[in-house]
Amino acid sequence: MAITDSPKGLEGVTAANSSICYIDGDQGVLAYRGIDIHELATHSNFEECCYLLWFGRLPTRPELQEFKLSLARERKLDASIISLLRQAPKHALPMDVLRTIVSALSLYDPEEKVNDAEANLRKSTRLTSQVAYIVAAYDRIRKGKPVIEPDRTLSHAANFLYQLNGQVPSETAERALDIALILHADHEFNASTFAARVVAATLSDMHSAITAAIGALKGPLHGGANEAVFRILEAVESAGADPVEYVQGMLAQKKKIPGFGHRVYHTEDPRATHLRTMSRDLGNSSGVPKWFEISRKIEEFVVGEKRLNANVDFYSASTYHTLGIDIDLFTPVFAVSRISGWTAHVMEQLSDNRLIRPRAEYQGPIYPTKYTPMGQR
Amino acid sequence: MAITDSPKGLEGVTAANSSICYIDGDQGVLAYRGIDIHELATHSNFEECCYLLWFGRLPTRPELQEFKLSLARERKLDASIISLLRQAPKHALPMDVLRTIVSALSLYDPEEKVNDAEANLRKSTRLTSQVAYIVAAYDRIRKGKPVIEPDRTLSHAANFLYQLNGQVPSETAERALDIALILHADHEFNASTFAARVVAATLSDMHSAITAAIGALKGPLHGGANEAVFRILEAVESAGADPVEYVQGMLAQKKKIPGFGHRVYHTEDPRATHLRTMSRDLGNSSGVPKWFEISRKIEEFVVGEKRLNANVDFYSASTYHTLGIDIDLFTPVFAVSRISGWTAHVMEQLSDNRLIRPRAEYQGPIYPTKYTPMGQR
Repeated sequence: MAITDSPKGLEGVTAANSSICYIDGDQGVLAYRGIDIHELATHSNFEECCYLLWFGRLPTRPELQEFKLSLARERKLDASIISLLRQAPKHALPMDVLRTIVSALSLYDPEEKVNDAEANLRKSTRLTSQVAYIVAAYDRIRKGKPVIEPDRTLSHAANFLYQLNGQVPSETAERALDIALILHADHEFNASTFAARVVAATLSDMHSAITAAIGALKGPLHGGANEAVFRILEAVESAGADPVEYVQGMLAQKKKIPGFGHRVYHTEDPRATHLRTMSRDLGNSSGVPKWFEISRKIEEFVVGEKRLNANVDFYSASTYHTLGIDIDLFTPVFAVSRISGWTAHVMEQLSDNRLIRPRAEYQGPIYPTKYTPMGQR
Repeated sequence: MAITDSPKGLEGVTAANSSICYIDGDQGVLAYRGIDIHELATHSNFEECCYLLWFGRLPTRPELQEFKLSLARERKLDASIISLLRQAPKHALPMDVLRTIVSALSLYDPEEKVNDAEANLRKSTRLTSQVAYIVAAYDRIRKGKPVIEPDRTLSHAANFLYQLNGQVPSETAERALDIALILHADHEFNASTFAARVVAATLSDMHSAITAAIGALKGPLHGGANEAVFRILEAVESAGADPVEYVQGMLAQKKKIPGFGHRVYHTEDPRATHLRTMSRDLGNSSGVPKWFEISRKIEEFVVGEKRLNANVDFYSASTYHTLGIDIDLFTPVFAVSRISGWTAHVMEQLSDNRLIRPRAEYQGPIYPTKYTPMGQR
């Protein structure tokens, strides 16, 4: 069997066919099912994008209405799951809790032992609603606040903010989160989606695949970067430091600046364009423009100095903070959106499945190395 | 950026360098750190193989003694974890429970927020002991039996059987399981190990990586196959059917026979050779040779008819059954062994890390597809 060598990290290697997400890294293009992300961010909403990702086309009005209802109906968690959330230690990382609880959901899923296309569509619907519920409920529980029952008349974005904060959000806040959810919904074979597909390809179940994806998203080289970005903004702000000097200091210590550069994009990440505007507008409307201003200064410096562009994580940090979301919920909120793409990819993988099982380039002790008996070691 | 096309499922594609496991699929060779699996199955034991996988060489006598002690010391579970095991619904699949509980372990791990080499070695030690404990304890709990406290003077294999059955196993049973654990400990970039590496490469944590691996191992195209094998043996036996006729019937219905064929081996799976002998010897010594005999007849027919060789899963089914292990624990027992390889691969990945992020070959609607406003759909 011929062995094909690959660049490290499978960079530039096509691992499979996919019809979900189109990216042109040189032109800075991202599209879901062929539709440009700028059009979607301007005209669409999270539920419609979720439908688009799952079904491959935009819904008609009755289809969208029914789809929204199906998501709203699944805004519920088994009492056992709420009880598990209450048992999590108070110092627990929200991403660890989310990963554990999503795994536990399988124990209570009515179709746990079914892995066909119809069941997986229903599981995708349930998981999309449940992930948002879990993130909001866990934040309330750890703060000693009561869990807010969902409002099934609200949009996905508005209900999430409502369950998180206990107040129906303003139209501006709802739309800001809705756009953020649209922008984060899918991104082709990013590491968490690829992990989900590797798991699904063994014909394991949807919950196993999504649990794996959450574990991957947690990593600071992936979803965890937006948290790292805000820790810098916070450090600059609390020290009253000059943003450029602070970042120069990091570079002098050979530290990477999180939120810049991307494996796939060699020009501006098209999601960053929207998030920059949103960060600015939210900052202005909330009367707290400082997070945007610090971000902007850092961006101008890094773009000029390092020729690295801001990616999706850079302006999501200040955006989420201005929406009243805690730092350690930034990555869970990423999951609230990306669950739509993960599930789309798992369903696509299963529609034409083959086990994903590459080879290693062996570099260890030469074969055969003798087994030396204990007395001779 | 040049894009390199790959065969489906990354077949024959080297995804990264590795010094852990050497496989020659044409010659039927498997070696850990260069040492042939036949030598290890004959002379070594699980703990020594675990040391070999993690440290890259065989231990000296004091090193092995200290290593065994370090594993034995970690045979413990937080009371909260035992409580979670008791809360699992009685109908839950053991692999779903194992995946959930391993994820939950991170919430109680003293080094949850540390991801350096030393901490990951300690986490690997803890997880190797904890996975065995969880599998045994959950089986007792779901049967309404008391959890057995570990015996730290026993080997890993003997203690697992002791915690499962409440009796110190015979020397034959201990050695049989020990050999099975050696044979299953690692297998290069199999799907679960690859999933673990994809997750680890985001710089997420050890528990996230291992949770992903357990989810992947569950799939019937991976670890789940040994369970499927035994369901066939059982069906043949309970119907008093002729094994060959039964399998002919399956083939006539275009069904795949689990336990045969392998992505990597094009000759006999070297692990099957040992498991066949073990299945036969255990059958004879237990006075119940029928499972081996049914297996042997199926194997002879499938090899002759389909030119497919038995793989690691085929004879592990009858072996585990004869050891008194329930069918739905076959895959968890695979995890009890493979945790040693998974952790070795996560540590290797982190020692020279790069994000694993391939591309997709886009096949969807042509870009740009217009966003059609709702009124025009």
